[in-house]
Amino acid sequence: MSDNRIPVAVLGATGNVGQRFIQLLQDHPWFRVAELVASERSAGKKFSDATVWRLGAEMPEAVRDMTVLDYSADLQSVVAFSGLPSEVAGEIETRLAANGIAVVSNTATHRMEPDVPLIIPEVNADHLAAIKTQQANRGWKGFITTNSNCSVMHLVLTLKPLQDAFGLKKVLVTTMQAVSGAGYPGVPSLDMIDNVVPYIGSEEEKMETEAMKMLGGFVDGAFNTADFVLSAHCNRVPVRDGHTECVSIELGSDATPADVIATFESFRALPQELGLPSAPARPVVVRYEDNRPQPQLDRDTERGMASVVGRVRPCPVLGLKYVLLGHNTIRGAAGAGILNAELLKAKGLLPA
Amino acid sequence: MSDNRIPVAVLGATGNVGQRFIQLLQDHPWFRVAELVASERSAGKKFSDATVWRLGAEMPEAVRDMTVLDYSADLQSVVAFSGLPSEVAGEIETRLAANGIAVVSNTATHRMEPDVPLIIPEVNADHLAAIKTQQANRGWKGFITTNSNCSVMHLVLTLKPLQDAFGLKKVLVTTMQAVSGAGYPGVPSLDMIDNVVPYIGSEEEKMETEAMKMLGGFVDGAFNTADFVLSAHCNRVPVRDGHTECVSIELGSDATPADVIATFESFRALPQELGLPSAPARPVVVRYEDNRPQPQLDRDTERGMASVVGRVRPCPVLGLKYVLLGHNTIRGAAGAGILNAELLKAKGLLPA
Amino acid sequence: MSDNRIPVAVLGATGNVGQRFIQLLQDHPWFRVAELVASERSAGKKFSDATVWRLGAEMPEAVRDMTVLDYSADLQSVVAFSGLPSEVAGEIETRLAANGIAVVSNTATHRMEPDVPLIIPEVNADHLAAIKTQQANRGWKGFITTNSNCSVMHLVLTLKPLQDAFGLKKVLVTTMQAVSGAGYPGVPSLDMIDNVVPYIGSEEEKMETEAMKMLGGFVDGAFNTADFVLSAHCNRVPVRDGHTECVSIELGSDATPADVIATFESFRALPQELGLPSAPARPVVVRYEDNRPQPQLDRDTERGMASVVGRVRPCPVLGLKYVLLGHNTIRGAAGAGILNAELLKAKGLLPA
Amino acid sequence: MSDNRIPVAVLGATGNVGQRFIQLLQDHPWFRVAELVASERSAGKKFSDATVWRLGAEMPEAVRDMTVLDYSADLQSVVAFSGLPSEVAGEIETRLAANGIAVVSNTATHRMEPDVPLIIPEVNADHLAAIKTQQANRGWKGFITTNSNCSVMHLVLTLKPLQDAFGLKKVLVTTMQAVSGAGYPGVPSLDMIDNVVPYIGSEEEKMETEAMKMLGGFVDGAFNTADFVLSAHCNRVPVRDGHTECVSIELGSDATPADVIATFESFRALPQELGLPSAPARPVVVRYEDNRPQPQLDRDTERGMASVVGRVRPCPVLGLKYVLLGHNTIRGAAGAGILNAELLKAKGLLPA
Repeated sequence: MSDNRIPVAVLGATGNVGQRFIQLLQDHPWFRVAELVASERSAGKKFSDATVWRLGAEMPEAVRDMTVLDYSADLQSVVAFSGLPSEVAGEIETRLAANGIAVVSNTATHRMEPDVPLIIPEVNADHLAAIKTQQANRGWKGFITTNSNCSVMHLVLTLKPLQDAFGLKKVLVTTMQAVSGAGYPGVPSLDMIDNVVPYIGSEEEKMETEAMKMLGGFVDGAFNTADFVLSAHCNRVPVRDGHTECVSIELGSDATPADVIATFESFRALPQELGLPSAPARPVVVRYEDNRPQPQLDRDTERGMASVVGRVRPCPVLGLKYVLLGHNTIRGAAGAGILNAELLKAKGLLPA
Repeated sequence: MSDNRIPVAVLGATGNVGQRFIQLLQDHPWFRVAELVASERSAGKKFSDATVWRLGAEMPEAVRDMTVLDYSADLQSVVAFSGLPSEVAGEIETRLAANGIAVVSNTATHRMEPDVPLIIPEVNADHLAAIKTQQANRGWKGFITTNSNCSVMHLVLTLKPLQDAFGLKKVLVTTMQAVSGAGYPGVPSLDMIDNVVPYIGSEEEKMETEAMKMLGGFVDGAFNTADFVLSAHCNRVPVRDGHTECVSIELGSDATPADVIATFESFRALPQELGLPSAPARPVVVRYEDNRPQPQLDRDTERGMASVVGRVRPCPVLGLKYVLLGHNTIRGAAGAGILNAELLKAKGLLPA
Repeated sequence: MSDNRIPVAVLGATGNVGQRFIQLLQDHPWFRVAELVASERSAGKKFSDATVWRLGAEMPEAVRDMTVLDYSADLQSVVAFSGLPSEVAGEIETRLAANGIAVVSNTATHRMEPDVPLIIPEVNADHLAAIKTQQANRGWKGFITTNSNCSVMHLVLTLKPLQDAFGLKKVLVTTMQAVSGAGYPGVPSLDMIDNVVPYIGSEEEKMETEAMKMLGGFVDGAFNTADFVLSAHCNRVPVRDGHTECVSIELGSDATPADVIATFESFRALPQELGLPSAPARPVVVRYEDNRPQPQLDRDTERGMASVVGRVRPCPVLGLKYVLLGHNTIRGAAGAGILNAELLKAKGLLPA
Repeated sequence: MSDNRIPVAVLGATGNVGQRFIQLLQDHPWFRVAELVASERSAGKKFSDATVWRLGAEMPEAVRDMTVLDYSADLQSVVAFSGLPSEVAGEIETRLAANGIAVVSNTATHRMEPDVPLIIPEVNADHLAAIKTQQANRGWKGFITTNSNCSVMHLVLTLKPLQDAFGLKKVLVTTMQAVSGAGYPGVPSLDMIDNVVPYIGSEEEKMETEAMKMLGGFVDGAFNTADFVLSAHCNRVPVRDGHTECVSIELGSDATPADVIATFESFRALPQELGLPSAPARPVVVRYEDNRPQPQLDRDTERGMASVVGRVRPCPVLGLKYVLLGHNTIRGAAGAGILNAELLKAKGLLPA
């Protein structure tokens, strides 16, 4: 690895999303993990002493001996990837952004603010224009960008090509979400052995609002909301990783399942054109078997960075339906943040 | 138990549904299991030797020493409860009905035939009028009645009071179905550990057609189809018993969630009025907690004979949404058949 | 229910074990739940407002409107069933016992003290003689008795008849324990989906020491330890209720598997002779199928109050081996405490 | 890939073990999959049409268009990796070996025959001397070698260094085995949701006999059995991949846990010395955390080719105990076969 990679910090480094950031940044061609930040309980310790590593492979060698910094540390990094708990994210992210750092956040806190971009690079890269507005509004040297909630991320990635090709009128989605989305310890096993929980706090609201921001425009310094309606039913199921979503949709113009499949298959966008390191070759991958996608078999498609779609067929109520599956802690969280940072770099938007 | 209870047979007695019939008929006030029928592999053996009992409590004493009859046996029972595999059900059920037996079937084979009632006693008891048509058409001394597929059973039980109160226009349902619905061995564990399968063969079609028959009328000797549209997404999840369903609905007239809840709460029908032994006191039970119903906590409500509803709330797309949960092998299968037979008895429709 | 049943309190009433106590005491012929005690968070509230009821059936009507008392309350009950967290149990149980209450505890705190009986009524009812010693030593008007850890409870219940018939030399046990043993929230689902955790804190030590106390004697005012050796491997597996244990054993004298089975089958003890209300008809139930006992099928044997044994066969290393299964929150916790209290009552040992 | 890699066949190519062979042989430096053999149902079809690929990543491009051969085909390959069902393996493997092919079999059929090597390269590479005896006895141009059952494989890999360092007297093992060991469809999900099955047909017998052969010698043309005793309890648990085993052991001479750990840590053998492509750098990997190894976190250690050991501690009964974890379809099946073939190649034992 070259020594002149861009130094980055991981905020909330000991948590589930923090660990994914570290895992995915291992051997990254552009970024180098230089600083790890966590709560007081961990601060001052070696990262390997402060952290129970919960991802399959070993903790990357490069971070084992790094000393964990506390929330109030002055960071030297150019980018700060944030997997902070929402209770503390607001203040910390704000301070770092004010001080000149590009905060790339997976936390919900700032997502819906009127000058904060909520970005999926394949969907609304043009929303990055809000950074300027944000810096002007707030007098910051740095800035905050965010990625969306994990379940709406994959939904929107599949809606975007349909919106462009046919327009969107109505979307009804029922999710079956993996437990890793709730972190560790997260969901008790007594709720997940021989059970389904038909409720995830605030999740339906997040899906219904974040989708509208991402699929809407940024015009004259303001976000406007997309003009379709979305309804979400969110459920927790006994799956480790990978959210499955059943989607019914009313398009703005007629389209057969074959048309929709062709639209998914041909969908390419800015990350693919720019060749961003974490970009999937195909943002939406179509499976043709009756019983796919499945979390077990499909969540690692395109290294977890794609949405996998199957069972595209007519819906007697809304016209069209399909199933989608996406990795919730890779494309749905840490991987989304990294792709956003790659886009910032490629567009020359990182602080000097 | 009195000796003059009505003798009944269980067809497919060694299978999952057959075992549930036997379990639920234990100590039944009106019916006595008199004959057990299964395939050649089991015929001629004692039931306890032929059967691996897979339900929690012990095999009922009364059936342990009964000799299993084969498919071609001439039965002496008044009622034959059928949990036969669909490959063989057609011919056997037809022969028994022709010979004067009341066949009460859980199998799909005859469900959609134009003179066969598909009954939920709370929903369409008037469809029993088709028995006469059936006997006239076919020259049978007995007859066949059927109950529906397990996932549409609970949906329709919740739709009926809404149809009566407000009318139905559109229904969109996503199911998360338990593995017991597929029998034994059924779904391989490799498909159900850390996984969801977004497909169950023919299930969506069954839901979309059977609901229309049950919620339609029987007029002038013919069934007419209900005039709303229904779309189903069916999924298999790692749950033993209890189907969870996320329902969005467009009603025929305005109704608030409170109106809908009141309609569910006050719903009573013929089985409750007649005091049928297996009838739930409340066919639809409403839960008010955010995260209910859940299979683990709610599937045994009203001895597994009720549909449990929760999270009644507005749906931005169709107007109203809720979650329902029902036991798939009790109210969804064997219990449904027994309630049907109780209705036949109470209405004086069983063969003399 | 007669009004003159003995009033009892449940300590830690909102927790998992507390809820089981309440469920099992519903309609008890001798005891009436009169007081519910929980931490400050719940104290002062109605029980139904303070508690998320996690057991299948509904919260018993009789406790719904009771006001939860705090830890410092002066109780009026004769018996206090304790499912307190171990951090607080020591002081509270001591105070209540001093004040004249019979504390029947499921908590580990006092179990190994030299004048506190650790009781399984079928195994060591004679240890109740230690109550006098305890009251003399401590100047208490009441007393504390305890039941053992859930995994050693079932093991000892099966070892006792073997000890009596053949003597015990060596016992090696590997457990596969249900998650309900860890309470709620307890074990995170990320540890239990597609996984086994080969460690439960302090569990192996508890098994290795508690068995020795229970299978030893109480002579001249002191417990002496049983003179065999025991080794335990404890594992957590994705099961809700029911601990499975693989046992290899070296007996003191020769015994065939048939001898051992006959010994299990004929085992009856004081609770059976006294006809205690919660006593299982058979404390050890033998299954003869190759693949039993299993948690799903056997945990509710004898209303969860029996240990179920199967696969009794020769062990090439220690001579004999078998599998046992027992319900961990019924016979392994709350049910054990209730049976202990019934024994105290039957022996005339409850405070006047 | 060079064109002069050795052509190999996979027998039972569409099954679970067959698919693992194909996956692990993808990009192998020495071997090239040249022929795929399966039952009549698949023969004649393109492999991609005949096979539902059940491993995470996609079916390797190189095999997609290969035509599946039937069981009677005359093979051109030098090595035939066999994952055949045991009902058919005997005859087919015999015919191929007679015709000059090196059959490297994962099937149990020939394992215990007196002139068939049952090999773990780190353990008993000297048993390959039996090939000559086998060829002389049977007049074969080729030969059969086998690998062991998946659960005994990992046990023996950990016993070998202890046997060498301290001698073995007694071993008592309780397994918690993954469902992938039973193939597809294999274990029904109704047996694995909220359940453990304390029985796997013939598994305990296989462990108790195969270990003795592998840890014994091959002297004067005959295998002699190792002189320790082994007792196995085998259980199926709800885990996809990775067998966990709790082991208690009596060594031939005194050893502390630290001695045993040091022995595990320093264990290296022929595959490591020869640098075989599939050899793990460390055949036995030691974890030092309290609660490790776990299937989820440790099964892929050394690409699934190592046994992972933890919790080495004193056993009150046999002296020493530990937990081990190993991937059952990689090192426990297909990976074992490939390592055996690599050893044959490195020792110059493959047919010319």
